[in-house]
Amino acid sequence: MQIGMVGLGRMGNNMVQRLLRNGQHCVVYDSHPEALQPLADLGAIACSSLEAFVASLAAPRAIWLMVPAAVVDKVLAELTPLLQDGDIVIDGGNSSYHDDIRRAAELTQQGIHYMDVGTSGGVAGLERGYCLMIGGEADTFKHLEPVFAALSPGADAVHATPDRALTTADQGYLHCGPHGAGHFVKMVHNGIEYGIMAAYAEGLNIMHNANIGMHERAADAETTPLRHPEHYQYDLDLPEITELWRRGSVIGSWLLDLTAKALQGNPSLDNYAGRVSDSGEGRWALSAAIDQGVPTPVLSAALFSRFESRGNADYANRVLSAMRKQFGGHVEKPEGGHIG
Amino acid sequence: MQIGMVGLGRMGNNMVQRLLRNGQHCVVYDSHPEALQPLADLGAIACSSLEAFVASLAAPRAIWLMVPAAVVDKVLAELTPLLQDGDIVIDGGNSSYHDDIRRAAELTQQGIHYMDVGTSGGVAGLERGYCLMIGGEADTFKHLEPVFAALSPGADAVHATPDRALTTADQGYLHCGPHGAGHFVKMVHNGIEYGIMAAYAEGLNIMHNANIGMHERAADAETTPLRHPEHYQYDLDLPEITELWRRGSVIGSWLLDLTAKALQGNPSLDNYAGRVSDSGEGRWALSAAIDQGVPTPVLSAALFSRFESRGNADYANRVLSAMRKQFGGHVEKPEGGHIG
Amino acid sequence: MQIGMVGLGRMGNNMVQRLLRNGQHCVVYDSHPEALQPLADLGAIACSSLEAFVASLAAPRAIWLMVPAAVVDKVLAELTPLLQDGDIVIDGGNSSYHDDIRRAAELTQQGIHYMDVGTSGGVAGLERGYCLMIGGEADTFKHLEPVFAALSPGADAVHATPDRALTTADQGYLHCGPHGAGHFVKMVHNGIEYGIMAAYAEGLNIMHNANIGMHERAADAETTPLRHPEHYQYDLDLPEITELWRRGSVIGSWLLDLTAKALQGNPSLDNYAGRVSDSGEGRWALSAAIDQGVPTPVLSAALFSRFESRGNADYANRVLSAMRKQFGGHVEKPEGGHIG
Amino acid sequence: MQIGMVGLGRMGNNMVQRLLRNGQHCVVYDSHPEALQPLADLGAIACSSLEAFVASLAAPRAIWLMVPAAVVDKVLAELTPLLQDGDIVIDGGNSSYHDDIRRAAELTQQGIHYMDVGTSGGVAGLERGYCLMIGGEADTFKHLEPVFAALSPGADAVHATPDRALTTADQGYLHCGPHGAGHFVKMVHNGIEYGIMAAYAEGLNIMHNANIGMHERAADAETTPLRHPEHYQYDLDLPEITELWRRGSVIGSWLLDLTAKALQGNPSLDNYAGRVSDSGEGRWALSAAIDQGVPTPVLSAALFSRFESRGNADYANRVLSAMRKQFGGHVEKPEGGHIG
Repeated sequence: MQIGMVGLGRMGNNMVQRLLRNGQHCVVYDSHPEALQPLADLGAIACSSLEAFVASLAAPRAIWLMVPAAVVDKVLAELTPLLQDGDIVIDGGNSSYHDDIRRAAELTQQGIHYMDVGTSGGVAGLERGYCLMIGGEADTFKHLEPVFAALSPGADAVHATPDRALTTADQGYLHCGPHGAGHFVKMVHNGIEYGIMAAYAEGLNIMHNANIGMHERAADAETTPLRHPEHYQYDLDLPEITELWRRGSVIGSWLLDLTAKALQGNPSLDNYAGRVSDSGEGRWALSAAIDQGVPTPVLSAALFSRFESRGNADYANRVLSAMRKQFGGHVEKPEGGHIG
Repeated sequence: MQIGMVGLGRMGNNMVQRLLRNGQHCVVYDSHPEALQPLADLGAIACSSLEAFVASLAAPRAIWLMVPAAVVDKVLAELTPLLQDGDIVIDGGNSSYHDDIRRAAELTQQGIHYMDVGTSGGVAGLERGYCLMIGGEADTFKHLEPVFAALSPGADAVHATPDRALTTADQGYLHCGPHGAGHFVKMVHNGIEYGIMAAYAEGLNIMHNANIGMHERAADAETTPLRHPEHYQYDLDLPEITELWRRGSVIGSWLLDLTAKALQGNPSLDNYAGRVSDSGEGRWALSAAIDQGVPTPVLSAALFSRFESRGNADYANRVLSAMRKQFGGHVEKPEGGHIG
Repeated sequence: MQIGMVGLGRMGNNMVQRLLRNGQHCVVYDSHPEALQPLADLGAIACSSLEAFVASLAAPRAIWLMVPAAVVDKVLAELTPLLQDGDIVIDGGNSSYHDDIRRAAELTQQGIHYMDVGTSGGVAGLERGYCLMIGGEADTFKHLEPVFAALSPGADAVHATPDRALTTADQGYLHCGPHGAGHFVKMVHNGIEYGIMAAYAEGLNIMHNANIGMHERAADAETTPLRHPEHYQYDLDLPEITELWRRGSVIGSWLLDLTAKALQGNPSLDNYAGRVSDSGEGRWALSAAIDQGVPTPVLSAALFSRFESRGNADYANRVLSAMRKQFGGHVEKPEGGHIG
Repeated sequence: MQIGMVGLGRMGNNMVQRLLRNGQHCVVYDSHPEALQPLADLGAIACSSLEAFVASLAAPRAIWLMVPAAVVDKVLAELTPLLQDGDIVIDGGNSSYHDDIRRAAELTQQGIHYMDVGTSGGVAGLERGYCLMIGGEADTFKHLEPVFAALSPGADAVHATPDRALTTADQGYLHCGPHGAGHFVKMVHNGIEYGIMAAYAEGLNIMHNANIGMHERAADAETTPLRHPEHYQYDLDLPEITELWRRGSVIGSWLLDLTAKALQGNPSLDNYAGRVSDSGEGRWALSAAIDQGVPTPVLSAALFSRFESRGNADYANRVLSAMRKQFGGHVEKPEGGHIG
């Protein structure tokens, strides 16, 4: 079927390519015109204005937005005046489901259908397919199924779970519920993703420091002695160990596959500074848990580690140093004592 | 080659089966004699005493212990007097690597070689193969490679990571370093496992309670009002969603495969009480991190959730209630108000 | 000056008493009429209807609401139609500052001044005075200062911090900023309170279990052996230790004073079940931190412990048990194994 | 009575001063000779060698060590050959109670009594007195009571808890149990201290960023939009607020008194870098909790925040960035985006 795509960054661009490969007709637009030609070369109809884009789509239009969450409302403000009754807008980015509920109510009043689609798959999605978590009206979902099926991995991607009737979930896309349900599920998905990533990262940090007993330590009141330096004498080969864990281990996963790949030839990862962004869903998942009274110590710890990686604990740490100075006369140790 | 196995529980039994399938010769012993006959039927030499077991093995003997960590020293005390110079003892269970270092020193004095092998794979290991993290002398590792190769999944289990020279890690076994290194890596592995499992469990709990706005809440000073009940009106289908996430998603993993399977036909999981054991490595991984000064907020949160699941926070919670009574006159609310 | 009080529960009742003691004139109302007479006996003007209450107050009226956060909007809906231009409504309860901002905007349109006052002090506030964190217009703050001064502890409550110019903070009340600032500060205050309480509770739990080495433990694959039982042979006297810590220790505090009191004659605290409520601010503090990107691992852990104490981790724990069953064939251990 | 002090740093020096003030006879030694004269001027017998120090003490000697935990064994190795049957060694520093148990066993074989004394009070202890948590033999405790009484704050330091028989705890010192019990209790005490400090620090960080809505934010896929900037427009005065909380509030404490003092004239605390040391007990408290199966999410979060403040999460953070690059093509944002 015909689908329009607004936003041709890493995600949108790859998704158009996959749609084209799988026989869908794509009309594309991006505010950065240089993104257009490569997709036109692959068969997309590339438009240099939003007006031309809307005009190139047959009614009822199906328009997929793949833009940062922070600009969705701005794009909608420009786009919806150009649309007509029965058109469909799909937000495939990382919007908060609270916004979906609001937007769906607003667009419904204008006769426009709204779908929220949480999209997972990353840059590998072009080849592996995308996992699609979909919220909105059941009829609109059905209407768009050819697009969802073209984007998703298909049933052969993994072994089927035994003893279940096949559904679209086995293809890699699912109508999760009414407006917002898609981004709700994607929000939780990303909260889990942060937790899993942090679990690996913390474990690798322990192994990275398994040789800490080989180094001398200061013996002052500000430094704890390492009680058994003879137990920390291992030089562990992290590229080999992550590779090993990919086979047969309980912690095998696609994230581990990627970690093993990242470590090949670069075990110290010193080409990274370690400032870790978060794109919002981890925060919203935590907020939802708080609203619900659901304890999420792991998901929150993972999120806070990202905040800390960006220096956001600095003031709190200065407060601690100031307290220690007050009660103990403790002077901060000079920089440089940190571990690996 | 010939290998002796002591301990024929879930793990040991399956490992013997896999060794036999892959052409190794097995001599087996267990203090529960009923475990012996099924393996004898498959071709193992089954012995009803430790003495007979040792006598049935050709020197230099290779004896694999697959027993609970708490009884390894007891088994060694019975076994080592029967051994002779050059024999090899392998601890394939979940011992602390601190114990490995001590035991290796003790056994070396008696001329016995000691290897520590962290073994991952669970009950599926029989079919999928086991991931083996190995510590000890390089020569003894080389000597035992046929056994390790027979147990491990082999190189075809997953796609190879590009641009690397193949090693035994690609088969699913690795010599990680000297005595204790195998269990050190397994310890970290299990710490990560707890973290990943908790990430999924917390996320599923959020989705399980996505309908919380449909229920009435008390309006008293002890209960926080839910600010937007209209945003918690989703009945999410967890068996479908976990199935969905297996395809194309960033959080795909074998643990997710198993979770999807466990949820089929049983989304409420009410056949479980939720008392979650821990077998030690998660604790030791955390202790190692503390020794090192490595922050592991996610791994610790996952471990503490298990402690809490078993009621171990009860006294702390009573302290909190007692404090609240003292300063606020707050009386505990009666049981029954908990969420899904 | 004259002040009206709506809501005569534990907090409102005591506050009226303190106001009367300190020479203020109080008009009081509660939907539960039995709360009225005791305060009338002490000199308050008690009103049996909201209409009578408003009529008994001289314009411009100053009306303090001390009701659960969940009913503030309901009370305002009944009250504001009875008010007139220039009247003042004070929300002294535990409202979210987001609601303050909204309410202030609404009431301002009706010519009514709104103040938000975070109030700390608990049942001891009658004698010790209340700590008042105040948000709203500076003029209205100034107008109400006699009331704030009567409620607060006064400058003699603690030693003055050296080298500072005295302000109202030294009396125990402070204009923190515009609308919502009072409840914002109170929200953070309560978040901190949860953290401090949990720190004590966790520490006491460690000491409560200092004798764990005296008990036998199972030796199976589901139970970690205690490595040094000889190091956990202490029967610690918690009433004595908390009493001790009140003198000279770095962790002395009013919460510790109350804890020591609660433990006297009742070290096991077995008259409590350990279901710990939360009144909202801890959640909102965490939500604010998430919005800001401020890492708050301690405050969140404290909040989640409360959620867990009420059974809200149950589904997550069942997920963990289900996973363990899938990969390891692990069967849950029967109840009864939990520690102290 | 006569007491010998080895180690005249911040703590030891002040303790000698307090002992002298309260009528005790002090013999002092430090490996840094410049520490001796000031105490000699106050009446102590100052010795320039360990031999002279031991010779200046009447048998049975009572020798208090106030040295870093990392050098206690070294000092004991030099000191004990000079001692004789019946002498007493007191470790008043921050040793692990595991070491106490070992040392007590070793010294008992040499006829020397060993006491472990957890000492809290900081630099203010000289004036406020020290809180003493004492482990060892009951007879030795009784023998040393004049010293403990001289160091401790005395019963007037705080209001007595009602309805209890007075004990030495009301003076500020307590025999907690056999060898190691003193440092066990001090270990838990410091674990709690870290938790309380972090609770304040995190809360202050939230207030420090209450104006975050005044700043512009990037609108890209790597940055979450702040949903309600209009709710983060507060410029909160932290010196005033901490001062306020000292009066009447539930979170009043000595640590808050010190925090208020530290913030006076320096609300940004920019004279600190925020690298926070830990002196070991927080680690050991956490290790004890892990051994016991006691969940301590708050105490661990507080400890890990300190580790992170020193840069010890750097490798883990680089792992996270490397993963994000692999699956999402995400490039790290340049430095500078962190909050206040």
